Amino acid sequence: MSRFGEPQHPIFRQLNASIGFDWRLGPYDVEQSRAHATMLAAVGIISDGDRDALLGGLERVEAELGGGTFPFDPGDEDIHMAIERRLTEIVGPVGGKLHTARSRNDQVATDMAMFTRAHALQTLEKLQHLQSVLVQLAERHEDWAMPGYTHLQRAQPVYLSHHLLAYFWMFRRDARRFEFVLGSTLELPLGAGALAGVNFPTDRGLVARELGFTAVAPNSIDAVSNRDFVLDCLAAAATCATHLSRLGAEIVLWSSQEFGFCLLSDAWASGSSIMPQKKNPDAAELLRGKAPRVAARLAALHGVMHGLPLTYNKDMQEDKEHLFDAVDTLD
Amino acid sequence: MSRFGEPQHPIFRQLNASIGFDWRLGPYDVEQSRAHATMLAAVGIISDGDRDALLGGLERVEAELGGGTFPFDPGDEDIHMAIERRLTEIVGPVGGKLHTARSRNDQVATDMAMFTRAHALQTLEKLQHLQSVLVQLAERHEDWAMPGYTHLQRAQPVYLSHHLLAYFWMFRRDARRFEFVLGSTLELPLGAGALAGVNFPTDRGLVARELGFTAVAPNSIDAVSNRDFVLDCLAAAATCATHLSRLGAEIVLWSSQEFGFCLLSDAWASGSSIMPQKKNPDAAELLRGKAPRVAARLAALHGVMHGLPLTYNKDMQEDKEHLFDAVDTLD
Amino acid sequence: MSRFGEPQHPIFRQLNASIGFDWRLGPYDVEQSRAHATMLAAVGIISDGDRDALLGGLERVEAELGGGTFPFDPGDEDIHMAIERRLTEIVGPVGGKLHTARSRNDQVATDMAMFTRAHALQTLEKLQHLQSVLVQLAERHEDWAMPGYTHLQRAQPVYLSHHLLAYFWMFRRDARRFEFVLGSTLELPLGAGALAGVNFPTDRGLVARELGFTAVAPNSIDAVSNRDFVLDCLAAAATCATHLSRLGAEIVLWSSQEFGFCLLSDAWASGSSIMPQKKNPDAAELLRGKAPRVAARLAALHGVMHGLPLTYNKDMQEDKEHLFDAVDTLD
Amino acid sequence: MSRFGEPQHPIFRQLNASIGFDWRLGPYDVEQSRAHATMLAAVGIISDGDRDALLGGLERVEAELGGGTFPFDPGDEDIHMAIERRLTEIVGPVGGKLHTARSRNDQVATDMAMFTRAHALQTLEKLQHLQSVLVQLAERHEDWAMPGYTHLQRAQPVYLSHHLLAYFWMFRRDARRFEFVLGSTLELPLGAGALAGVNFPTDRGLVARELGFTAVAPNSIDAVSNRDFVLDCLAAAATCATHLSRLGAEIVLWSSQEFGFCLLSDAWASGSSIMPQKKNPDAAELLRGKAPRVAARLAALHGVMHGLPLTYNKDMQEDKEHLFDAVDTLD
Repeated sequence: MSRFGEPQHPIFRQLNASIGFDWRLGPYDVEQSRAHATMLAAVGIISDGDRDALLGGLERVEAELGGGTFPFDPGDEDIHMAIERRLTEIVGPVGGKLHTARSRNDQVATDMAMFTRAHALQTLEKLQHLQSVLVQLAERHEDWAMPGYTHLQRAQPVYLSHHLLAYFWMFRRDARRFEFVLGSTLELPLGAGALAGVNFPTDRGLVARELGFTAVAPNSIDAVSNRDFVLDCLAAAATCATHLSRLGAEIVLWSSQEFGFCLLSDAWASGSSIMPQKKNPDAAELLRGKAPRVAARLAALHGVMHGLPLTYNKDMQEDKEHLFDAVDTLD
Repeated sequence: MSRFGEPQHPIFRQLNASIGFDWRLGPYDVEQSRAHATMLAAVGIISDGDRDALLGGLERVEAELGGGTFPFDPGDEDIHMAIERRLTEIVGPVGGKLHTARSRNDQVATDMAMFTRAHALQTLEKLQHLQSVLVQLAERHEDWAMPGYTHLQRAQPVYLSHHLLAYFWMFRRDARRFEFVLGSTLELPLGAGALAGVNFPTDRGLVARELGFTAVAPNSIDAVSNRDFVLDCLAAAATCATHLSRLGAEIVLWSSQEFGFCLLSDAWASGSSIMPQKKNPDAAELLRGKAPRVAARLAALHGVMHGLPLTYNKDMQEDKEHLFDAVDTLD
Repeated sequence: MSRFGEPQHPIFRQLNASIGFDWRLGPYDVEQSRAHATMLAAVGIISDGDRDALLGGLERVEAELGGGTFPFDPGDEDIHMAIERRLTEIVGPVGGKLHTARSRNDQVATDMAMFTRAHALQTLEKLQHLQSVLVQLAERHEDWAMPGYTHLQRAQPVYLSHHLLAYFWMFRRDARRFEFVLGSTLELPLGAGALAGVNFPTDRGLVARELGFTAVAPNSIDAVSNRDFVLDCLAAAATCATHLSRLGAEIVLWSSQEFGFCLLSDAWASGSSIMPQKKNPDAAELLRGKAPRVAARLAALHGVMHGLPLTYNKDMQEDKEHLFDAVDTLD
Repeated sequence: MSRFGEPQHPIFRQLNASIGFDWRLGPYDVEQSRAHATMLAAVGIISDGDRDALLGGLERVEAELGGGTFPFDPGDEDIHMAIERRLTEIVGPVGGKLHTARSRNDQVATDMAMFTRAHALQTLEKLQHLQSVLVQLAERHEDWAMPGYTHLQRAQPVYLSHHLLAYFWMFRRDARRFEFVLGSTLELPLGAGALAGVNFPTDRGLVARELGFTAVAPNSIDAVSNRDFVLDCLAAAATCATHLSRLGAEIVLWSSQEFGFCLLSDAWASGSSIMPQKKNPDAAELLRGKAPRVAARLAALHGVMHGLPLTYNKDMQEDKEHLFDAVDTLD
């Protein structure tokens, strides 16, 4: 960037920097770089020796990231730059070859797809577990009678098991949504370059296979403009959080003295210093209170993408915090 | 409702009434009622003669609704009540038998699923058409060079065809989303009753087959509480509208004198009385400006369902206007 | 618009037309036109005879609009065009002089400010009434003891009057918000022209006084770009609706058999055909369920205005339906 | 809390803990505690010696918080508990007397009001500065002609100064909004106790004066349920962010080669390794891209408060992160 005559303004650097949150993409970035280096050597763009040097350096970077010993530098604007800088410190000038036939735009899109896929998979496991717990609870309360409600008015008697299984089906549908999210992340952006592809005879299929993508993105402009998979993930998360909020709201209701349907475990409640008789359903309230946050993240990303000309625009950097907060909240 | 000693307050009637918008469910309600009557006779709950009377009456109701001659009554609170009232006027007391083994709650959920499915199908056709148009446009501009942009800065030259096809792939993904929506509407709620099923040996499979559902909802509490398919439809619509807004924004940009990439057809532009040289891209601006409305409808329905105890609550009546406005906007 | 060689496409006309909702601006448009004509004559731009003809015609237009006899024409795109067309039918070619020194852009902004102010005033009256009702209710239940809750757990005993007055203070703050909205509508946009003012020696102060504005908008570009007063009104409405939703939610809760704190009046409840013992708090549920809709309208308008270059863009036509729906919902 | 037979579940502790974000309330909590201790002594609830001990300890706590040496403990759930624990470590058992006549509920509401007020004041200063900068810029470009746009079509020529001053007026209105926010924070919640006041003859007026409140909250139930001032602050921030997004969008547009109205300073732009001729307007893009986040925070808090029964519910803990992120983003 030697063309620029003036150093960047410190406030701009701070505003522009994404390292404060995108460090979470680190493991995916290393994995991607490993596949990229392997491919570069396989098609002869770099030598096998260079590849081995790069892979060795990446291994060390990965260990440092994993062990919390990665030496971040004040000049690192984002995790990608940090990893490249560190890699070059470790392996010397050959580190610079890793960026051959790759642009920051397709690199970021690829990391985001990998991150989204990994978290969709984790959520699927958690939903699986939650469904099992509900089935077990239902089995243990198979014939416990309780009032069924419409309009919060007692309507017809039902079994508690039947009521609990209603949530089972909700989370089962949520699982189908997260499976759809997985499907949205299966086309590899890498190879799209900044927007118009790359001037090297790369083998995108090889990279795709290494990283678990099932196809390569067919249009390079779309590949770097596309954040649909993040929107899909946020939409799935928002509906799942809404289901959880209904469960939370019912636990709050059932824990009231008036309903008295359930007694909270001491392990999930808090007390009050002034009123020692109280047992507050804080956990259930938070389950209820966190859904609007996830829905808002979805709304915000729709807002960011709204009317945005193709291809990459810096606005899209906002996708990360919206996604990270949503997956954390759902966790 | 003879137990109520006092007539309903007029403002309550007005607030509570949904006939002003849910008349659009009319055709689905008639279709559902036809299948329900057929099933009631098939399992012997009503006689074949009653069924024929009901089917005849429903045919006339359908014709009246279709022809705009249906006589609405000031007392009709919702379209379901209006159809039942009218049916009874036409066929006499046997009209009342149609409500056997059916509650308003499972009836409404079924209509909504049918409406959502029908509109998802229509949207799929429109997306198909839009994709064809884009392919044709791309073929006609296969080798037209233009600047490719990142950050709205000229980056690398691309072909217009390549740029247009980026939108092709967006709408193709939207089509996958609406296919998912279809899948969300395939379990028949009818038979769930108010919330705890019905006390008749009905044949839900028969009704499902008649109405194009592939299964029956397995949990009656969930069946009447569930509006996931509306959320799915709104999420798909919001992402599609966001894509359209990007296209609209680019047309606005390209129509500016500064870009000058395209000349708007007179058929899709407006002028100005004060400045006769102007040609305003109103259509493209509206394409851009309507996306937030669709995203907001999604946010609103998440808000309505948030923390809502099972099963049906009147709040859920809000699902209709949110969905109707979204599908209209997308049209 | 004779320069345009091709007629407008019917779908574009339909999409572009706002007459389906902006007819509600009619009375404000007539009032504005009356003040504008008066001013044009006062400064000598039109003759007193022309003014009298215009005022006479506007009176008839107003009567037709008020009496529901206004003859709308399929070609009317918006209410402003409809009124001008009708006025010219009534008074002849002099009708065209009304548009002297006025553009559609400043005309629409002025109508919107007048509409917003009128509805803020109406809401203030309703809030006043609601506060009175709460005070009366509190006086009638001054020493009725009830449990006070935190976390929906009984905490400390309070009086019902004390609880009801908590809502009094919420609505009092809402009134302050709507007073702020009034203050946002007090600068007259008219005179800003399309964006750069008008080429006539008009007297904006006279128009402002006639229409109840306290000042003239100081910057013509801002005057036609500004919809802050609509955002202010939607923000006030959203917070007020959130307060109402809390009240609605408490009434639903208190009407449950478990709480049993209140018995709904038959006039505000609905029953169930299957379960005759039920009395559903539909009105309170709708009070609760409508808040997300208002908040979503606010979010949508923020979305529309987001990143919109100055000055007027057709996207801003969306402001009307968002505002209209919000004020209707609050009513 | 000795009544609880079981320790809290670690995941619950983590979910429930707010120390990770509410440490930012620390300075306000110390200031509030100082005023509270002063008042407790003034009315004779504690001795002057106890007061002096408490004030001495709070001074040290403040110094530790300010200097980054405050020893946080894994058991600290929130900043209030952390400060009390540390205070007692410093001053011994007298530390416990600080919580006399105060509940966590009114304490948190008071901290939040103080935080909101302080940040509204800071924002007002920044808006003041921004307005000055715009006036200076306008003076330096007083007669620079440029096209004025409607629909992004050149309409009429204007001066750049006139265009820049349009933003001046937007930010001036934003300042009025933040002044309204100040007004929303002027009633002291402290003294409301958990919800029903406190059983001590406290002097709330004294505390109010010490902390810059102009009145005491008149209704204790409302005082602990009320987060209107946070909603007001988020609404003001959302509109201000929307204005900034319009400015950002215009800078992006003007920096394009096609418009070429402005040349970005190197200090506020970034380059591209692949395309060295590029200068990307990242800062302006982020200005544009961050508005939806602020609007979403507002929507989320409306969502949290929606339908929430009085008084305090744990859901309301979500108010903090929504407000903190919004004020940070606006900064």
